[in-house]
Amino acid sequence: VIWSIVPDARINDLTHGSRQYGIRDGALLLWSSLPYQPVGVHLAVVDPGVGTERRAVALEVARGDRLVGPDNGLLMPAAERLGGIVAAHVLANRRLWRHPEGSTSHTFHGRDIFAPVAAHLARGAELADAGDQLDESELQTVGLPQPRVEDGTLVGHALVVDRFGNVAMNVDHDDMTGTDITLGSTVELEVAGERYLATYAQTFADVSPGELIVYEDAYRTLAVAINRGDAAATLALRPDAEVRLRPR
Amino acid sequence: VIWSIVPDARINDLTHGSRQYGIRDGALLLWSSLPYQPVGVHLAVVDPGVGTERRAVALEVARGDRLVGPDNGLLMPAAERLGGIVAAHVLANRRLWRHPEGSTSHTFHGRDIFAPVAAHLARGAELADAGDQLDESELQTVGLPQPRVEDGTLVGHALVVDRFGNVAMNVDHDDMTGTDITLGSTVELEVAGERYLATYAQTFADVSPGELIVYEDAYRTLAVAINRGDAAATLALRPDAEVRLRPR
Amino acid sequence: VIWSIVPDARINDLTHGSRQYGIRDGALLLWSSLPYQPVGVHLAVVDPGVGTERRAVALEVARGDRLVGPDNGLLMPAAERLGGIVAAHVLANRRLWRHPEGSTSHTFHGRDIFAPVAAHLARGAELADAGDQLDESELQTVGLPQPRVEDGTLVGHALVVDRFGNVAMNVDHDDMTGTDITLGSTVELEVAGERYLATYAQTFADVSPGELIVYEDAYRTLAVAINRGDAAATLALRPDAEVRLRPR
Repeated sequence: VIWSIVPDARINDLTHGSRQYGIRDGALLLWSSLPYQPVGVHLAVVDPGVGTERRAVALEVARGDRLVGPDNGLLMPAAERLGGIVAAHVLANRRLWRHPEGSTSHTFHGRDIFAPVAAHLARGAELADAGDQLDESELQTVGLPQPRVEDGTLVGHALVVDRFGNVAMNVDHDDMTGTDITLGSTVELEVAGERYLATYAQTFADVSPGELIVYEDAYRTLAVAINRGDAAATLALRPDAEVRLRPR
Repeated sequence: VIWSIVPDARINDLTHGSRQYGIRDGALLLWSSLPYQPVGVHLAVVDPGVGTERRAVALEVARGDRLVGPDNGLLMPAAERLGGIVAAHVLANRRLWRHPEGSTSHTFHGRDIFAPVAAHLARGAELADAGDQLDESELQTVGLPQPRVEDGTLVGHALVVDRFGNVAMNVDHDDMTGTDITLGSTVELEVAGERYLATYAQTFADVSPGELIVYEDAYRTLAVAINRGDAAATLALRPDAEVRLRPR
Repeated sequence: VIWSIVPDARINDLTHGSRQYGIRDGALLLWSSLPYQPVGVHLAVVDPGVGTERRAVALEVARGDRLVGPDNGLLMPAAERLGGIVAAHVLANRRLWRHPEGSTSHTFHGRDIFAPVAAHLARGAELADAGDQLDESELQTVGLPQPRVEDGTLVGHALVVDRFGNVAMNVDHDDMTGTDITLGSTVELEVAGERYLATYAQTFADVSPGELIVYEDAYRTLAVAINRGDAAATLALRPDAEVRLRPR
């Protein structure tokens, strides 16, 4: 559909493997990967509300990118990370959709609305061509749990599990202030009342195969893994589960 | 292999996720997606008969596309939907294969025959360069079950299950003539003697999470889904299963 | 990351489906596919030792390709097959990495080292720009089991299982010298003490659905399959398992 509008578009299909209905998973995926992509038009669709009154939007961010997708929070963390929103428009102009005069699917806006609008933007259309401007305060956000420190214990949450079973948390290095956790030390991990020992280290190979590691991942967030193993399965760690971390 | 012949080819890898040996699944995938692709050369390989006497073919259709693949019915529904076949040629000219003088794999014609021929066509070769012309009547077809209405009950079949567990049927809107099913009404679904209630609606969000919906999907065929659930698993619906639909 | 450095790079994403931590699987995948790719820069990352002292390398081979990845044997069988290594350099020059002055992830060298170096090579950098030259003897290799013939029995090993359950072995046609196995004959397969009958044939359709076939696959190595079935599951054949083949 994009090539029908921009025959020479270079399209990077980032993934079709996002968890179904997982708006937050998709939002975090964009948050972590868009900073490493060239400035461009980014199209994302995780859209359980397709066919309802939920808005379709295009956002321009400070870095210069345009983001296109449903107004369900999916685009917001990435927009924030790319410098913040400088303009938001609703996708109301049907002339930028796939069927200017015809019918639009009630279940596949990716094909009929988002992709064509993204293509027109890539081809030179202005955000204002897509529809009326919105105030940023009108946009939906995706709620993320916040980490905290309680009596030297860092209380975080699992956010995303990758295909290796590595679990990224909602915690970054600064959140560890107030704990006595230091690189190379042993930490106690508590998940659903069960306690595990892990090493706070830099990379998988700092522990033996089968051992737990807590590390700062490639996106600067804290993650839990088992060297050559599957931490999510072993610890029964699913997104949103509380993870308590303390020195030992 | 294609880039070795046409270094600047733009290649859209539609999927490698088609069901194994599923000629009909592949045929329906092409049928549903090629109308939304730019006019071009389309290469498709679902080929359980590779290495046998089954023919390899290239088809030209009225819209201007060329379709390349095994002569096992895979290309036929899409060819019909793109306006019908205007020419069919057998892939007999080994000069358009990967090894003009050498050996050709008995198990990987995708690499050694189909991809090179598709590349040569994209580069400007004529269909006639590939081999002798065939009459359309000589081509294999893929048998699809036909829906019918019996005493106000629409009798269809499951065709394809997507990764969400949504089940597309061999039924389109016109096939519902003769039933009293209207948009927004409750319908009774019967699968293998079990009966379920569903809403005939436009989009997933028209029902609550966990509820069954019958809807016209993005390709204008009738489909069965569960909002945020897996209809194929819940109803034990596999391709070819009979689905009976009646008003309630 | 590559497009940030070479905006017009044509990128062929061969697979993200390699078995986790499977250096040998990845090595065999490159060995089997690179001969069919155009001469170019090939980037491969299966890297359980990321963040340790394992070296990162770029190799130039006789065919003219440059191969970039970890020095853990991953690149070696393919390099051999593309004519052998003509130069090897360690990736030590941080100016070709993603963050010339900043920090580099301890767990994602694919993004921060391998991809940027590959991009710079594609853009015209010399191998020597990446870092000091290495002697080929300093490079890690990946150990592959060797087949043998014992009293007319060919003793090989399973190497790779594809998504169809077809099992490629470490055996090619020449290794069969000394056995009495001939095309079209019945052979006895022995796996973990269990014996099975198979046909030594050219293609799947030479046997009935559900029957075992031993055949020369598209990469000229011997493979075991079940026509329309899953040989790896049926024979409980995992990589490294010994497979004994004899005429019957």
